[in-house]
Order: sequence, then C-alpha cells, then structure tokens
Amino acid sequence: MNNFVFYNPTRLIFGKGQILQLSKEIPADAKVMLVYGGGSIFKNGVYEQVQTQLAKHQVVEFGGVEANPQYSTLMKGVALARAEQVDFLLAVGGGSVLDGVKFMAAAIPFSGNDPWDLLTGKAKITQSVPLGAVLTLPATGSEMNYYAVISRKETQEKQSMGNPLLFPVFSILDPETTRSLSYEQIANGIADIFSHVMEQYMTYPVNAPVQDRMAEGILITLREEAPKTLANLSDYDSRANVMWAATMALNGIIKSGVPEDWTSHGIGHQLTAYHGITHGSTLAAVLPHLLKVKRENKFEKLLQYGQRVWNLSGTNDEIVDAAIEKTTEFYESLGISTKAKTYGVTAETVTKIVDKFTTRNVVLGERKDVTPAVVQEILALSLA
Amino acid sequence: MNNFVFYNPTRLIFGKGQILQLSKEIPADAKVMLVYGGGSIFKNGVYEQVQTQLAKHQVVEFGGVEANPQYSTLMKGVALARAEQVDFLLAVGGGSVLDGVKFMAAAIPFSGNDPWDLLTGKAKITQSVPLGAVLTLPATGSEMNYYAVISRKETQEKQSMGNPLLFPVFSILDPETTRSLSYEQIANGIADIFSHVMEQYMTYPVNAPVQDRMAEGILITLREEAPKTLANLSDYDSRANVMWAATMALNGIIKSGVPEDWTSHGIGHQLTAYHGITHGSTLAAVLPHLLKVKRENKFEKLLQYGQRVWNLSGTNDEIVDAAIEKTTEFYESLGISTKAKTYGVTAETVTKIVDKFTTRNVVLGERKDVTPAVVQEILALSLA
Repeated sequence: MNNFVFYNPTRLIFGKGQILQLSKEIPADAKVMLVYGGGSIFKNGVYEQVQTQLAKHQVVEFGGVEANPQYSTLMKGVALARAEQVDFLLAVGGGSVLDGVKFMAAAIPFSGNDPWDLLTGKAKITQSVPLGAVLTLPATGSEMNYYAVISRKETQEKQSMGNPLLFPVFSILDPETTRSLSYEQIANGIADIFSHVMEQYMTYPVNAPVQDRMAEGILITLREEAPKTLANLSDYDSRANVMWAATMALNGIIKSGVPEDWTSHGIGHQLTAYHGITHGSTLAAVLPHLLKVKRENKFEKLLQYGQRVWNLSGTNDEIVDAAIEKTTEFYESLGISTKAKTYGVTAETVTKIVDKFTTRNVVLGERKDVTPAVVQEILALSLA
Repeated sequence: MNNFVFYNPTRLIFGKGQILQLSKEIPADAKVMLVYGGGSIFKNGVYEQVQTQLAKHQVVEFGGVEANPQYSTLMKGVALARAEQVDFLLAVGGGSVLDGVKFMAAAIPFSGNDPWDLLTGKAKITQSVPLGAVLTLPATGSEMNYYAVISRKETQEKQSMGNPLLFPVFSILDPETTRSLSYEQIANGIADIFSHVMEQYMTYPVNAPVQDRMAEGILITLREEAPKTLANLSDYDSRANVMWAATMALNGIIKSGVPEDWTSHGIGHQLTAYHGITHGSTLAAVLPHLLKVKRENKFEKLLQYGQRVWNLSGTNDEIVDAAIEKTTEFYESLGISTKAKTYGVTAETVTKIVDKFTTRNVVLGERKDVTPAVVQEILALSLA
C-alpha cells in the first residue's frame, strides 16, 4: 500500500426527508446565496422544501448554472454575491451546480485580476466562502470532495480545480429528490460513477485489499442496481444505493493508498470542451478503448476485476478480454455509446486534442505513460 | 437503506515514516501533554521519533495508561494537565491510550463535581481539549472515531462514551511502529477488528449493498491477512493492511445506513470488568455463541456472510451452520479461545452480569431483543 493522507470533513446527511435538517446546518445569521441550475428544482418540489427551510434566513437567488458550468455564467454569480455580500453559498442541484458553487466560493473573495487563474493554478486559493449542498442528481461525487470542473466556451477549455477550502460544510442527499430525473440523466450518472471507480482502481496492484474490495463493492453494486433503477425510476432503495455509491466513489476513501489513472477524464474533458458531450458519455467513449490499449499495463488488475466484478472464468487472457468486453457492454446497456463517432467527434477533433496535449506536455495515466501518441491510439479505436 | 449522517473530520496520515508529519499537525504555540501507556514506545523507537518532532513545543509527559484504561489513572493525568495548563493532548500508543486521552480531553475542562458523570451520560460533554494520536497498535479504531471506553476497577465498571468533540484532529498510522508488537497483541487486535465489523454487519439486510460489500471486504481482508501477518511479524504490507482495516472498521463508513448489534461488546465489556480479560478475547468468547442463539434472527445475513466471506456452498441451513463454525475457527486460528470458561469466567460471573443488566434494564441487539435471559443463554454456551 502507498502512503496517503485521508481527510474529509463534509457532513453527509442522507435519506428520505433529510432536507428538513437544512436550516440547522446554515448559521442563523448567514446571508445565503441559493444557487441552482436550469430550473428542475421548481418542478420536483425541492425549491419549496429549501425555501421553507430558509424562511428565517436572508436569501439571494442565482439560477441558470448549466451542465458543464460556464465560467462566464459563474462570474455573474460572483458579481451578485459580492454586491449582496453573501456569506454562505447553497448549491441546490447536481454536480454542475455544486462545481459552479465551489468555483464561486473561491472566486468571490479572490482579489487578483483574473479568477480563471484559480483554475489554471496561476493563482492560489487562500480563502473561500463556506458552502453547502442539497444534491438532486447522483453522479459526480462533488457533494463530498473539494474538486470542481469548470468550462469556458470561448476558448474551448474545461479545467479542474481542487482545494481543501472547497469541501462542502454539509451535503444533504435525499434519494427522493432524484425521482424526477430522466432515464438519460440516471444512466449518464451511473456511467460517471462507474468511471470514477475505475480511474482509482484499474491501475496496478499495490497490495491494498481493503481499497480494492471497496472499489469492487461499488462496481458490483452499480452492475446490480443499474438495471433495477433504470427499469423502475421510482424504486427508492435502488435510487438510494446508486446515490450512496456515487458519493463513496469519489470521497477519497477508495483512492487512499493506491495509484490513480484519470486518463479517461483527461481525454473526456476535451471531448466535452470541443463537442459539448455529456460528461458520463465522454468517459464511456474513452475507458473501454483505454483498457484495450493499456491491456498489458493493467493486466493483473483487469484479471482481478474480471474475476471479482464480473465472475468470469477461463484462462487469464480470456478473462481479461471478456472483462474489457463486459465493460463496453455495461455502458451500452445504459444506452450510452462507447464510440466517440456516435457523438460527432471527428479525426480533426482528435488532432486538436493531441496537439493541445503535445503543446502543454500533458502525459496521463498511473504510470505517466499515456503520451499524446497513446491518446491518439485510444481515440482512433473510439472513432473506428 | 436507513437514513444516516456521516461526519468524520479526523485527518488520517498513513504510511511509512509519517511520524515526520507530526510537528506540522500540532499548533506551534501549543503546550502538549504527551500521553503513553506501559512504556513500549521507549523500546520501539517511537518515543524518539515523537520527541524529535516535538523539539520546538513545550511538552509535559504522562505515562502509565494501562490496557482497559482506568479512571483513577486518567484522573491523575487530568490533574497534571490542569496544573500545567496544557492545550493539546497527544496520545502515543494503542487504543487504550487513545481512549484515555479522549476521556481526559473531556474531563480537563469539565467544571462539574464528578467527571465519571461524563461517562454515564449524567453530565454532558460541552467542551474538550484538542487531541491527536500516533497509533502503534491496530485494533480499536479509536484513531478515527469519537468513542472511548473507560474502566473503574473499584466498582467493576466498564463504560463507553462518545461525542463529536472527541474526534482526534489527526492520527498518524505508521505500520512500521507495529513491528515490535507481540503475536498475542496482533492476534487480539485482529479479533477486535473482526468483531467490530460483525457488530455493524451481522444484523438483518436493509438493501444496502455498498455498505455490505465494504464490510465483507474488510472481513475477507482479515481472513486473508491474519495468517500472513501472524506468520511473519515483519511483513510490512500485511501489517499495513490490518492497520487500515482496523481504521475502516470503525470510522463510521460501514455502519452508515444499516442496523447495528453491539451485543458482543455489551457483554464483553462486563467480562473485562469482572475478570480483566483482554477486549479482543471477550468478543471471541461471545460472538460465536450469539450467532448460534440468534441464528434465526440473523439467518439472511449469516447466509450472505457464509457465501461471500467464506465462499461456502450447500443448502441455506448448511451454509449458515458452517458460517458460524468458520467464525469460531477464525478466532481459534488466532490462538484466541471462544470459550469464556478458558478465561476463568464462572457461572457466578454470569449471574452478576445478568443481574446487573436486569437492574439497569439493559436490552441489547439490533432488534432490542437480547434481554438478560438471552445474555444468560449466550454465556451458558460459552461456559459449556
């Protein structure tokens, strides 16, 4: 096992009716900016529940945070928060709203000229406005970590940031709030969760059985719960299990002491930046091909994964091949194509991505050997 | 899945050489009380490492905290800390030292007459001195939770307490510090960890597959690592895996959203109170018999446990019986007897425990149906 530090102070409040805990979690004298997305919270009853809880607070609202939250949108929120002197940010929505709020939390007190610098690392995050969340879409894990991914349409950038100052103070997860989600939203969420686990698991063994078995436990849960929750969108138990799987997939537990890959995310973010493809779909369009290209590198872990997650048997080579095939089938079973060409990605996009990575010396993977040439190879398979 | 709140702000610093992080973790201007146990830290090099790290701090030392830490001992530490006006407590040792420090953390600022009230719940914990730990014995999980168990010889009491104010700010876990432990210490630790998981897992299913599989992952890890670490006390990897298993067994993750039992601990604490039996051994002397007595209540979970943790097959009844047998064999394979009579427990002790539970209306178990009569039944099997 590798050395590690695990630290996660977010208070995770989970279950039916837990929005009733909201008012207690925010300081009584705080001026709150309630941040939401496209307005689904007005249709699923969440807005009313939140408003009831905030009855005694001063509240400013900021809506319209889009999927793959845009820098320009968020900067309007920053301006509003500064003008109104808010001192608590409440994200109500999915991972995009949460990520947007994390960026705003860092940008509001930032005194530099260009808050984009907080994303590129040119400027350091040294203070933040406290934030909390009511999560309505299980997928990104943003509810219990300090990461955010922000997009900038003008420059076709998608950039991630992370800082312990950006942990939500609390996150409330009521699986009932996810009932109004569409089949596609749930399916994309599951693809995202599955990929998050794979990024932290499908590397090489370092003799870390607790972490391996926990990662496998989440993968098996997704394998078993995905068809149930998609067949019956009002199955509370199944919805709850997917929601908790999403949080556990990216709160730091399963990555503690093991190598991490993140190649699929590195490439996937670029596919979103150039084509606006849904995050979960970009991961599905990369991961199976990455596994094929890096089959030898990841052989031992692929074998373990095939045996434990998919109950495969046969020769080692057969198990590994079948494990990759099962992964592809899993995404496809969600209705999510594993082929980048399905989403309109072209050879020109691949060239752009490879050129960008070359210019910026981007090398990905747990062994830092996914060079731009390897990225080309992976995307070529996805375009085939 | 049941509703739950998960909150755990302890910074867990894990791995080889991590004691080098210690000085950074304690405020530079803090006056530190370094608390230790019987003096093993002078033999295994930990004392020197800690002293080096505390070179720039004001330090007061308090040693002699015993296994099953005694109230009278700890009250001397409380007096010293008050006299010296210390403002940080550093536990260096195993779970007993950590538990002792947690009690002191609450007792030092307590203004009431009798700090024992903090343990019985008669008085509330409203403030605490911050605490951190360097853990040298993997077992109790105290390094990443807010619980403590304190004994009082004079009155044959063993009482537990818990409060979020008692979370360690940080805990440093270097598996190398555990090399000097004896076979018996390691074996007892593994028995303790195994039992902790069982208390939170071996109940009844509530459709919580992530939690179930994580608990099973720890149990399987213990099953696989126990023989390795006991066969080779200097196997770093195996030692590290047991150490992380211990923390994950009792940091709140696996109990989130599922029922808990704690019957074995409830009875085991009494066996320690009357006979001074090592904690891990008391659990071994109760759990297998509890499983037999509560076989029908726990049938579904026993079946799942038998299949997943012990890879058993056969009829459901055969699997359940074999699962209980495997549990017994596991403890015995550690050299830990599952029979209370081996430790000198007599029928008179059983009567005392049953009488105490009757007087205090103690009813245990995930269904609150382990009455004093059932406790008698369980202990009768252990004495047989």
